[in-house]
Amino acid sequence: MLNVSSARVVAARKLTERAGRRAAGLFLVEGPNAVREALAAGAVRELFCTPAQAYEGVSYAGPIHLVDDRAAAALSETVHPQGVVAVCALADVPPEVALARRPQLAVLLAEVSDPGNAGTVLRTADAAGAGLVAFGGGSVDPYNGKVVRSAAGSHFHVDLVCDVPADQVIHAARAAGLRVLAATGDGSAGLDDEDAAGRLAAPTLWVLGNEARGLPPELASRCDDRVRIPIHGRAESLNLAAAAAVVLYTSARAQRR
Amino acid sequence: MLNVSSARVVAARKLTERAGRRAAGLFLVEGPNAVREALAAGAVRELFCTPAQAYEGVSYAGPIHLVDDRAAAALSETVHPQGVVAVCALADVPPEVALARRPQLAVLLAEVSDPGNAGTVLRTADAAGAGLVAFGGGSVDPYNGKVVRSAAGSHFHVDLVCDVPADQVIHAARAAGLRVLAATGDGSAGLDDEDAAGRLAAPTLWVLGNEARGLPPELASRCDDRVRIPIHGRAESLNLAAAAAVVLYTSARAQRR
Repeated sequence: MLNVSSARVVAARKLTERAGRRAAGLFLVEGPNAVREALAAGAVRELFCTPAQAYEGVSYAGPIHLVDDRAAAALSETVHPQGVVAVCALADVPPEVALARRPQLAVLLAEVSDPGNAGTVLRTADAAGAGLVAFGGGSVDPYNGKVVRSAAGSHFHVDLVCDVPADQVIHAARAAGLRVLAATGDGSAGLDDEDAAGRLAAPTLWVLGNEARGLPPELASRCDDRVRIPIHGRAESLNLAAAAAVVLYTSARAQRR
Repeated sequence: MLNVSSARVVAARKLTERAGRRAAGLFLVEGPNAVREALAAGAVRELFCTPAQAYEGVSYAGPIHLVDDRAAAALSETVHPQGVVAVCALADVPPEVALARRPQLAVLLAEVSDPGNAGTVLRTADAAGAGLVAFGGGSVDPYNGKVVRSAAGSHFHVDLVCDVPADQVIHAARAAGLRVLAATGDGSAGLDDEDAAGRLAAPTLWVLGNEARGLPPELASRCDDRVRIPIHGRAESLNLAAAAAVVLYTSARAQRR
């Protein structure tokens, strides 16, 4: 059983830092549910688990290391380690590759810094049937432990794009025939009006900005339209993940009518 | 300037614990935006701020205490204290009082334990125009610091109900003429079908369950219908706050058509 000072554990721990992930081309996925998705996607390169957390029923030919609780905790980024951590290959693709698959629904996060929000948007985009989720330059690293945890396995379900400037993603999406819509608090078009007019049935890239600052104006001006989510009550705005859920599910419904 | 050992600061610190809040009938609200909403609602009983955080432009006749940074940090539950903390009167009302105002849209959280999720649902419900948000028995305390932070002032915008058993809220809502819908992963009715059939235009109470376990079956069986949010992609489910955003905005749109 490996302990916290074993060379394999020490090497895997480096993946809790962005620099370590980029150098190795690997990231960590924790917990039985997310690890199952990683295994199904063929992304797992190495698996660590505690004896208490039997891991079986999946086809996986790579190394499985039994670790003690301290080593499992050292590889975990949560308060309650779940006893299973997989080392996985980074999953992102260039935007052109993702767009060549003709996604009907896509999301671009621009300068989104909160990892929980970013991971929830990725999970929600997956649920809404989006084919592409891009983390534009200046956004949190999609392989950050909190993003991975919030996304609950969706890294392996959609085409993930990262480390590409937001305006380059917008340009490529438009060239691929997608309508590019900025979700903003003060857009000129109302979401429900866009929906009622049938304009959300087209293939769409939704662009979402930072939790506090919103979309940079120069980026919003590059979108085809700025769309406002209605605020019926007295809240000043929606949380980013809630806004993403509203626009993505409105598009998903419109595209299936 | 008050320091961390001042009697007022020591007394206010007790409000970071549930027992202290219940004993005093008070809770803490932090940050300029949320405190502005509390002031507008007339809920503030005492205000603490640092000299760096000038607080002006609002009508407030109660005590304002200047505090040093350490005292501000002691009253804060965040990593980056914002320098303004208000002691506010608890804001909840009995369900009968809230229902007498005839809300068209309402939410009940059943055994929801994650404070960030709960606060985000409250904020989203406010944005969607809901008039009532109930935290059923077994849910996180709505006055918990993380809930308050995530709700961003919405405690003062909707009728908040708490410490009431979930089935009692369901009973009272139905008696007041609301349709009671459980949002579940496996409901018999699809959300889009309900919407297309015009059934979401009625006054509605949405019942949402725990992040991991979902709704207790005995509670789901007390609802008029169990409604399934479609999963178009490969995610297993939606995060609770995202699910709330989808159902509440679908209802809000249906009620305004």
